[in-house]
Amino acid sequence: MEGLRKHFEKFIHLTDKEWDAFSCKLQRKQLAARTYLLEQGEVCTFVAFIEKGAFRFFYNRDGEERITAFFFAGDAVSNYRSFLTGLPSEHIIESLQESVFWIIQKKDLYELFNAYPNIDRLGRFIAENLYLTVARRLDSFLFDSPEKRYDDLLRRNSRLLQDVPQFMLASYLGIKPESLSRIRKRKTKKA
Amino acid sequence: MEGLRKHFEKFIHLTDKEWDAFSCKLQRKQLAARTYLLEQGEVCTFVAFIEKGAFRFFYNRDGEERITAFFFAGDAVSNYRSFLTGLPSEHIIESLQESVFWIIQKKDLYELFNAYPNIDRLGRFIAENLYLTVARRLDSFLFDSPEKRYDDLLRRNSRLLQDVPQFMLASYLGIKPESLSRIRKRKTKKA
Repeated sequence: MEGLRKHFEKFIHLTDKEWDAFSCKLQRKQLAARTYLLEQGEVCTFVAFIEKGAFRFFYNRDGEERITAFFFAGDAVSNYRSFLTGLPSEHIIESLQESVFWIIQKKDLYELFNAYPNIDRLGRFIAENLYLTVARRLDSFLFDSPEKRYDDLLRRNSRLLQDVPQFMLASYLGIKPESLSRIRKRKTKKA
Repeated sequence: MEGLRKHFEKFIHLTDKEWDAFSCKLQRKQLAARTYLLEQGEVCTFVAFIEKGAFRFFYNRDGEERITAFFFAGDAVSNYRSFLTGLPSEHIIESLQESVFWIIQKKDLYELFNAYPNIDRLGRFIAENLYLTVARRLDSFLFDSPEKRYDDLLRRNSRLLQDVPQFMLASYLGIKPESLSRIRKRKTKKA
């Protein structure tokens, strides 16, 4: 949990009292590989902070799965849209490996916002960062080639190739598994 | 400016003192039609609240323009990503008509955040809402047909057809102007 506190320090310094109030609302959870953390149609009432593991964020439409994001250790994971609006999630969140994470419930977080202006401000930093994440994702869909998107993902998580099966990477990149093999071969030659 | 205060009341109640502190930092601006509010490569240091008019948000890559958003009266407009990170904007913000808006500078806003926890909280609500806007935009690129995206835009601004030229609408929808004509014809028949 100290890792999480250090992570928050990048945004804001919480006093011991503020940190105690926050951390005693955190619940440590473990999830086996390939297990749903959030189902399609469920309302998301939590934010989870990943200590260990990997998650995918995907939707299922007419039987076809499409992955829109991966989350790794150090990331916050939530269907933030469902969390904010109270609407059912269109996406599924699933662990890819055995994962450990800390979860805070919306009602607890909102109570903390009311009691501690500094935690409210932390909430602003989290909202701003989730904004940046989704804005980058939108731009990468508009601007970038699959190759560039593959490089960016690899930069964010160097263990990607162990953590994420090839067919999921291809789904995220919006290409066929064969095209991903070609991209990887080109990279091996260059390296 | 009272319209803006009412708009904020949807998120949070500001006392007269808080509103006075905030509103005395707002500058009223006017911009002629087809004028840049933000250039490509410029760092965005403001948030603007539109009282009257319309703006487009677009990028220019290899000579090709692509529109990613429209903003109308009641919307907040900013390149929020550039605003938060201090990085140069990849996008251009341009007025489509003669427009009136209220602008607040980043340094003033951050001073207000420090002085008034309630205004900091307003900042969180703004960040959360901008998150929802961009998350919806990403989903609409992933999920929706051009026809659905056209309907959604029309629902947000019923004056759309007066406010936005056809070729810009087509660019936003990612289709050719001829395809947009076909969509509109189908709708006229149905109506």
